[in-house]
Amino acid sequence: MILGLVAGICTTAAVIPQLWKAWKTKKVTDVSPGMFFVLITGLALWTVYGLLQSDWPIIITNGLALCLNSLMLYFLFKYD
Amino acid sequence: MILGLVAGICTTAAVIPQLWKAWKTKKVTDVSPGMFFVLITGLALWTVYGLLQSDWPIIITNGLALCLNSLMLYFLFKYD
Repeated sequence: MILGLVAGICTTAAVIPQLWKAWKTKKVTDVSPGMFFVLITGLALWTVYGLLQSDWPIIITNGLALCLNSLMLYFLFKYD
Repeated sequence: MILGLVAGICTTAAVIPQLWKAWKTKKVTDVSPGMFFVLITGLALWTVYGLLQSDWPIIITNGLALCLNSLMLYFLFKYD
């Protein structure tokens, strides 16, 4: 159970170093917008899946990851 | 069930456009290695979690994502 929690925190928080780097350097040339489009689609579907199953760990981790990765997609358009 | 499958395919395959871009341009300056370190840690823990629970969908999606993201981390060091 702790293992799943730590795993969920890692996969949810992974985008934070990328957000920080983009915000600090204002450069995103080498980052693929396609990656974030596909990822956001997947995270949105996971969130809907969680809602349909009333599975709160799935809703919370994927919903938060959805917000963070959407911010990264915004940075990709802002700094390009 | 189909929803979870499509969601899993998206979150697993998301790194492919980034792999393609890095391989084509040979440039990874703006990509954060920290993102892939944290992500790989999380995916490895998810895979172990799946193994402990004998949950094959978790093992397969996270195991495959682990391989693809490890390849991206290799590109980050190779092209930097």
